Amino acid sequence: MAKVKYKLKAIMLDIDNTLIDTSRFVSIARDAAVDALILGGLTVERDVITKNLRRIIEEYGSNYGGHFDILLEELKVPKEKRNKLITYATISYHNAKQVLHPFPDVPSTLMKLKKEKYNLYAVSEGLSRKQWEKLIRSNLDRIIDDVFMTEDLSFTSKEPKFYNTILEKLGLKAFDCVMVGDRMDKDIIPAKITGMNTLHVLTRGYNKKNKSQKEDKIFSINSISELIDAIPKIEEAVSKEHYH
Amino acid sequence: MAKVKYKLKAIMLDIDNTLIDTSRFVSIARDAAVDALILGGLTVERDVITKNLRRIIEEYGSNYGGHFDILLEELKVPKEKRNKLITYATISYHNAKQVLHPFPDVPSTLMKLKKEKYNLYAVSEGLSRKQWEKLIRSNLDRIIDDVFMTEDLSFTSKEPKFYNTILEKLGLKAFDCVMVGDRMDKDIIPAKITGMNTLHVLTRGYNKKNKSQKEDKIFSINSISELIDAIPKIEEAVSKEHYH
Repeated sequence: MAKVKYKLKAIMLDIDNTLIDTSRFVSIARDAAVDALILGGLTVERDVITKNLRRIIEEYGSNYGGHFDILLEELKVPKEKRNKLITYATISYHNAKQVLHPFPDVPSTLMKLKKEKYNLYAVSEGLSRKQWEKLIRSNLDRIIDDVFMTEDLSFTSKEPKFYNTILEKLGLKAFDCVMVGDRMDKDIIPAKITGMNTLHVLTRGYNKKNKSQKEDKIFSINSISELIDAIPKIEEAVSKEHYH
Repeated sequence: MAKVKYKLKAIMLDIDNTLIDTSRFVSIARDAAVDALILGGLTVERDVITKNLRRIIEEYGSNYGGHFDILLEELKVPKEKRNKLITYATISYHNAKQVLHPFPDVPSTLMKLKKEKYNLYAVSEGLSRKQWEKLIRSNLDRIIDDVFMTEDLSFTSKEPKFYNTILEKLGLKAFDCVMVGDRMDKDIIPAKITGMNTLHVLTRGYNKKNKSQKEDKIFSINSISELIDAIPKIEEAVSKEHYH
């Protein structure tokens, strides 16, 4: 009788810039908001607005709710004009959520993996409801088995404890899982420390291979579709090391 | 030479259920949110969800941000399932904003008044940005000259001081203005106390004439389009009383 082929028990996928092109969305949404401010009557050069907005988002973090308030205060817009302008900007920002799409090869790749009975988990840093919104608007919630977000587990994704907690919750051993993500510091290194397999996705050139990756034997793929070839290779290695 | 005809200097219009069919929007948006909860996996009877949600909104006020949180807690939905469900509900609620339209006769009536060089002001109770959003999404921000909201002026609309502050800001005498609204307690009585003219709109049967109105000589119209005939009558009366 043929021996049953070893399979990974969990494929964990980061959301931002791994499954979904978040950087593209953010750029489109910010541009839309800046245009709305100008069309609403803000008479400041577009480049100046954009530059200041970027700095404010950097300074206060992307999950802070008052970026436009600070921007208009800094630009000395009278108080009684701010609510209208901010509402224009907010509506335009939210309308841009129509462009929250997965990367082109993500839906077909996940469907193939699902057909092969793999368990797919979204593992992400961020506010739970913001991350859920991205999955729901891009329809990925239909194919993902479960979701683990840093906000719910009370760790940052730079902490291996975040990944250990997920393993505990799923009752899985680290080497039976692979973590796929675009960030070395948040997705790859802390997951690797727990003993998980990792795949660094070089999406859109946001991240480049560097020397340390080669030294640490971090495997990378150029795009999610390459999972289809990469996973059997990982399975062969895990099978040899842990199940021979 | 013909005498210049007297004209009112300001037409002030309430937003909710006067310019915009807010009750219809709220009903559609809540239904959409309840459906989203059910399709997201909530296994509670639709009527029970709706009844509880209504009670919670009544209890905490419509501007409170955590209605769904309380609902799911009361319905004993496990904590780890709530973020997904709440995000489903919130997206559906916000998508329903597509139905934020003015009453059918509002755009053409306001355009006629604008052509006659009347100043049109939106005067409303509520959170400024929420009210601005209604005006912007229904395109009424394009024709309204200015907006006065209770949140910005720090009075409730039941206080004549709210209306007196608006008169001060515009530098107008009360009898040169008319306030148009659907609520006796918030739009009509406090405006009348300041000396403003008032028109009670009986939109969609939300409000009915009662005995006290007849006694107080409160004028009413059935629909915004009737402004076209009602305003000259008010002007004639004001002209006789104050400018003869």
